[in-house]
Amino acid sequence: MNSLSILEPATDESCCAPAGTPALGAEEAKQKALVFKALADPNRLRLLSIVKAEASGESCVCDLTEPLGLGQPTVSHHLKILVDAGLLHREKRGTWAYYSLVPGALEQTAGLLASL
Amino acid sequence: MNSLSILEPATDESCCAPAGTPALGAEEAKQKALVFKALADPNRLRLLSIVKAEASGESCVCDLTEPLGLGQPTVSHHLKILVDAGLLHREKRGTWAYYSLVPGALEQTAGLLASL
Repeated sequence: MNSLSILEPATDESCCAPAGTPALGAEEAKQKALVFKALADPNRLRLLSIVKAEASGESCVCDLTEPLGLGQPTVSHHLKILVDAGLLHREKRGTWAYYSLVPGALEQTAGLLASL
Repeated sequence: MNSLSILEPATDESCCAPAGTPALGAEEAKQKALVFKALADPNRLRLLSIVKAEASGESCVCDLTEPLGLGQPTVSHHLKILVDAGLLHREKRGTWAYYSLVPGALEQTAGLLASL
């Protein structure tokens, strides 16, 4: 279960929150922060950008190291954080792992800002 | 100059990027990551949520400590990060500082995701 999918069935707690407590509850804030934490790194933003720009819709990890000038272990570490946050989908085929944007994930993340 | 205002006149570098380089440049990625870093903390998300929900449009720092159960130095630290990122506006009046959402800042941040 990744951060975005946990947030998906989010109930609107703000409508029933007693006066004086924040509109955004502590647990929901924690989950939302995890998604933004995944985005809070320049290399991860660039990885998302490359995967998004790929005409085929997916990128092999072997093609992601060179544009960033990073080693494969570092790139794989960043990719794992993006997958765990629910932003990227990972598929292993043969020797390599292929990454694609989770459909609607960036839009859903933008929606987290609107619903603060 | 805050992170969002630096990003405001962002030119669309992706249209002219040579093939093989990421659509998102290193410097632009660094600036965008700073905004998401400001959002990557549950207490800062809750602060934004409280300020946003305030009918008068602004919150006194003296009203922001109790709902979060944090001390004022900690709350002031988080508020400074949100101001530096261009998400909150700070106005000192008398003894207290008052915080309001920078108009359009959350929408502009959502736009950063769309333009990755």
